[in-house]
Parts: sequence; C-alpha cells; structure tokens
Amino acid sequence: MSALYDVRPGVRDFTAYVAGLSIDEIRQKYGLSRIIKLASNENPLGVPPLVQKVLRERAAEAFRYPRLGNPELNARIAAHLGVGPERIIAGNGSDELIDLLVRIKARPGQDNVVAFTPCFSMYGMCSRMLGVEFRQAPLRADFTFPFDDLIDTCDENTALVFVTSPDNPSGYAATAEELADLARRLPERALLVIDEAYVEFADDPAKRSLLSRLDEFPNVALTRTFSKAFGLAGLRLGYGVLPAWLAEIARPCQMPFSVNLLATYAGMAALDDTVFLQETLRITREGREWLTRELTRLSCEPAPSQSSFIMFRPPARPGLDARGVFEALLTRGIIVRHLGGFGLADRLRVTVGTRRENETFIAALAEVLHG
Amino acid sequence: MSALYDVRPGVRDFTAYVAGLSIDEIRQKYGLSRIIKLASNENPLGVPPLVQKVLRERAAEAFRYPRLGNPELNARIAAHLGVGPERIIAGNGSDELIDLLVRIKARPGQDNVVAFTPCFSMYGMCSRMLGVEFRQAPLRADFTFPFDDLIDTCDENTALVFVTSPDNPSGYAATAEELADLARRLPERALLVIDEAYVEFADDPAKRSLLSRLDEFPNVALTRTFSKAFGLAGLRLGYGVLPAWLAEIARPCQMPFSVNLLATYAGMAALDDTVFLQETLRITREGREWLTRELTRLSCEPAPSQSSFIMFRPPARPGLDARGVFEALLTRGIIVRHLGGFGLADRLRVTVGTRRENETFIAALAEVLHG
Repeated sequence: MSALYDVRPGVRDFTAYVAGLSIDEIRQKYGLSRIIKLASNENPLGVPPLVQKVLRERAAEAFRYPRLGNPELNARIAAHLGVGPERIIAGNGSDELIDLLVRIKARPGQDNVVAFTPCFSMYGMCSRMLGVEFRQAPLRADFTFPFDDLIDTCDENTALVFVTSPDNPSGYAATAEELADLARRLPERALLVIDEAYVEFADDPAKRSLLSRLDEFPNVALTRTFSKAFGLAGLRLGYGVLPAWLAEIARPCQMPFSVNLLATYAGMAALDDTVFLQETLRITREGREWLTRELTRLSCEPAPSQSSFIMFRPPARPGLDARGVFEALLTRGIIVRHLGGFGLADRLRVTVGTRRENETFIAALAEVLHG
Repeated sequence: MSALYDVRPGVRDFTAYVAGLSIDEIRQKYGLSRIIKLASNENPLGVPPLVQKVLRERAAEAFRYPRLGNPELNARIAAHLGVGPERIIAGNGSDELIDLLVRIKARPGQDNVVAFTPCFSMYGMCSRMLGVEFRQAPLRADFTFPFDDLIDTCDENTALVFVTSPDNPSGYAATAEELADLARRLPERALLVIDEAYVEFADDPAKRSLLSRLDEFPNVALTRTFSKAFGLAGLRLGYGVLPAWLAEIARPCQMPFSVNLLATYAGMAALDDTVFLQETLRITREGREWLTRELTRLSCEPAPSQSSFIMFRPPARPGLDARGVFEALLTRGIIVRHLGGFGLADRLRVTVGTRRENETFIAALAEVLHG
C-alpha cells in the first residue's frame, strides 16, 4: 500500500458514530404528525425570546468576522459568574474547551488523561486523537463518584482529570466540598477539569460548584455551556473558567474565530434573559420531581438527578428490554436516549420536558410497559 | 515551579495575537461617523438576502443540536460542486478542516508539514500545536509559486503540503495544470491540500482548480469556505473536498457538532442565492480591475490579483512608510490591512469593496500620498 495512506497511529481506530434518525425521518418512517424529542437534553422552552430577537435583528451582520478572542462576550460571562474576565475563554461549544485543554496540557505518548466510566465521550476522543493515553475508573454501582479510585488511577504523568458534575447520564452531582477535597488530593501535575454543563439545574448550584472558590485552586478548571439551561445548543457556545495562569497560555493556542458571531450576540442576550433562565430552571426542577415520582410508580428505578434529565431502568419484561422500550416509544413519537453507547444497555435517559411533554411521555411509557 | 505548570512542549511559544481595533472602537477613537472596512476580505454585499430570510425564519430552532455530520449540507455542497457527497466534510470554517487534516495525517515528532512563506498562519499554527515540524519555502520575489523549491523542501516524512491558490495576500493563482504537475511530483506520502478560499473570484475558476479532476489525484484535498464569495464569515462555515479514502478516515475523527445549526441552514440558502453570488463576483472582478488601474496610477505597484483583494506597495515618501499610510487611512475611516504580520512591512492589502467604497478608498489614498 502506498505511503500516502499512512495516517497517524490510532486515527484509523475511530469508527463512524451512527447518528440517530432526524425528527423528520422519524416522523416519516412511523407516519407521525407530532414528535416529542427528549433525547438530547435540549431546552424544553426552546430559544430565549431575547435571543430570537437579537438573531433576527443581527442576521444581516453575519458576513463580518467575529472579534478575535470574543472580548465582549468573555467580559459578560465573567460578570455573570462573578469571576475575573482573564479566566474566561469562550469556545465552539464546551467541546472546544475540552479539546483545547487536552492539547495544551497533555504530552502525547507520555501523559495520561483520567476520567470515570461511563463518561462523556469527548474526554476519551480528544485524548486518543492527540495520542494521549485515556484511563478510566468505574463509577460505583449506584453511579456515585469513588474519588479514591479516581486518584488511584492517576500517576505523576496524569495531565488532566475530567469529572462531570452533575454527571451524564446519571444526574448525580458531587458537593463542592467533595470536589475541593479531590482537587487537594490529586497528583501535583494534574489539572482537574470539572464539566459543569448541567450545574445550573442543581437544586442549589452554589453547593455543587467550586466557582466561588477558584482562587484556592490553581489546579481546577470548569467548563460550562449555553446549550442546556440557556437554550443555544444549535449555536455552539460554551466556555471555560480557567486558572488565570492557564488561560494566559491557552488564549493564543485557541483557533481564531472558533465562536461564530451570532453565537456571541446570542450568548450575551441569553445572559440578559433572566426570566427565561428562571422559567427553565423552575419547570426543569418541577418536572424532574414529577418524573422521578412517576417513573418510580412504573417500577423504572429512576436515578436521583440534579440535572435536566433522568436515567432509569425499565422493569424486566419477557421480550421487552430497554432497547425495545426505546423503540416502542419511538413508534409513539417519543424520542428518548437508549444508553447502550454508555455501556448501560439496560437503561434509558429522558430529558425533562415541558409538563405536557412529560405527561405524554409517562402515558406512553405506561402503555408500553403495562398496556 | 510546581509540575502543575508543565504544559506540552512548544505550547508556551504561542504568543497572543494582537487584535486590531473593532469598528466601534475606531469610530470612537477617531470621532468618525462612517467606517469603511476593507481589511478582512468580507463580502462587499453583506449577507445574501436568502440567507437573512432563513436566519430570521429559523432563529427559534437554535435550541436544537445540529444533525451529526451535517448530511443534508454535505449533499448540497457536493451537488453544487458536482462531486460525490462522500468527499465532502463541512467544518467550523475551513480552519477546522486544516486542523483536522494535520491531526489525521501528521505523526508528531516525526512528520513535517510544508508550505510557502508567507502563507496563511493557520497551517503553521495547527502544525506546531500538534508537535509537527513546519517547513516553508519562500515565494518568488514576484509572489509566484516556485514549486521546485516547495518539492525540495519535502522529504519522505512530509505528511501535508499546503498551497493557497489564489494566494493570500498576493492574489496570485496557479493554473490547474501547474497544480496537477505538483501533485504528481510530490513525495509519495504527502497529501497536497489546496486552500481555495478565494477560488470563486478567479477570472475562470475552472482553469485554476483541480476540482473536476480529483479522481486522478488520491493525494489532493481542497478546502473552501462560505466566508468570502458567499458572505457568511460570521457564521463560520467551510468544507473540505477530500479523497474518498481520506474522508472516510476523517469523518469519525471530526469533533461532533462543530458546525452550528444556523450555519448549516445558511450554507444551503447561500448556495440557492445564485443571484447574490453572481453579483458578488461581478462587482469584485470589476472593482479589482478598477482598483488595479487606480493603484497603478498612484504608483502603488498592485500585485495582479485573481482574488477579492489587492496587495500593493505604497511609493516611498519621506516619513511615510506603509504603516504610516495604513494609519493615515484609518484616521479617514478606512481600514485596510498592513501586511507586517505576513513579513511584508512595506505592503498593504485592500479588500475589493463596492464601487462607492473603492472610490472613497482611492480618494483617501490619493490624499494621503499626494495631498
């Protein structure tokens, strides 16, 4: 074979992600008029009204490049969080930050990156893409965090440790004190990256995050996103809250113009739309409580969730496993997530929707399981 | 110093890019009411009307994730180009494709990437970020391409060769036959990536591109963008036209959801808006001809351009170098690009604007140089 076809070692091991059907395809395939998508943890209320207004007003500006480094947006995010703007780096989704942090910190062929299993696929994907070893410690059977095991998985070449809290797909969240303790106990070289994509949904976010104590921890970075609580998944906007020393190194390493201009406007408008955020949090927390109760009633073992979704295990039925439940819901126009991709083939995950969506989902699930 | 502060070798060598002032900042600083920005090769006609319509209509959908791998958009781009959809990978600007190709093909610490100097900064940035050697062969003094020198710079570990054609900042373009000849003569392992960000603006694009002959060249990839001729710089949308064997490897290595949802809609609408594209090309080609004549009249040595901008060298004036001309234009509300960043401190680059913008620019330049 020609040397042309030589690629970086490991690159051929990546296999094509098999995407689910689109809403249109599902509608067509099953002859449905209405689809309820509760599969991707998108915001149940859609796009904040203030963002929609700004997008319409500024559509004509999309021929301009964004400002390099998005200084206005970074400043607005910093003010929203109550941290210094020198810590903030916005990215094309928090995925870009995860990738950037691995690129900057990890030495290929020498360092390792550590996370729990199961975890968000991006941590492993970014590590392996860069030729960095990816190590995982199993979560406990109840999906809580065995931090001792995580620490035991690290060594002096551990460059980064990723913890998602609240976690996906379980919805479990550590306390700020537990995270502080972990940060103190990690090997000296390791940067602890706490992925807080869902932290806004926690009952008391301040008790779940080190945000207000970052000055104590030069080895802690947070990543957050506008995709969930702020309703901007399609615009791809996330950010990192980094130790200042790291942000200074990271900023010139970031691909210029990675954040699109409309996302910068949308992000600022989303921060302004506090009514939308409060309403999102209210219906998510209420819906979460209601769904947890109803799933319990249906013997589905919902995991306690601090997030915008609930993981559950449908009861064993002859000839009807979790994938079967997923597919039966699909024929009824309800899309949830089967967790086979997380190695949890007996479980499903449902995004908390509007009250009406939740009710429709529970009615359909009852029909599938007991109908 | 704590091991915490160890980062990947080379990463600390990246220095912060110093961004120019924003339009608002320039307006404020110089007390101007109107600014003409001819610095970033943005579309002189703005955002295509069909795109604006689609952005307004679909703003409310921005809470949804895009479809993984953007199949509809890729198919539309393929149809537009007349190539198979299996070749197309859309990205967050063509920058993402450049980075992806380097990631996939180059072995850190072993391979090298080759380009001319000066060239687009992204080739070197992506290479160095990944620990891959970046080699450059100088352009000729007249900014034409010495392909023999480029080939001499390659060796058996050359993973990629980047050629921008039409080139930036000179506007020079190779012929398709010259590019075919280069592709045939490169070492076996090397992938030739032809960056065609500006190819639509050439007098006869078909004579400047290998697009219609890609089946002959399994070692050639093209990158293109919606930022220039299609007026979508702010939405960040580009794509690669890859050899099928490489696209198959690259697709699962791409970060999921890197292209934002509104950009996918906008890209498809931009391909539909053929009136806008034709008008963009017409006024750019006419303006280019007119500006070339006027710059010659002002003794500014414009480089012959097949692109949407013109590089020129202002005549030597005591106490007024190219940067001085740039600054004098700025105080008059006209932003062009000083090419110090390309190692061409005696040259400027002006984007072809609307007829009125071009006339205002030339009048101001005449005043600065001879007023």
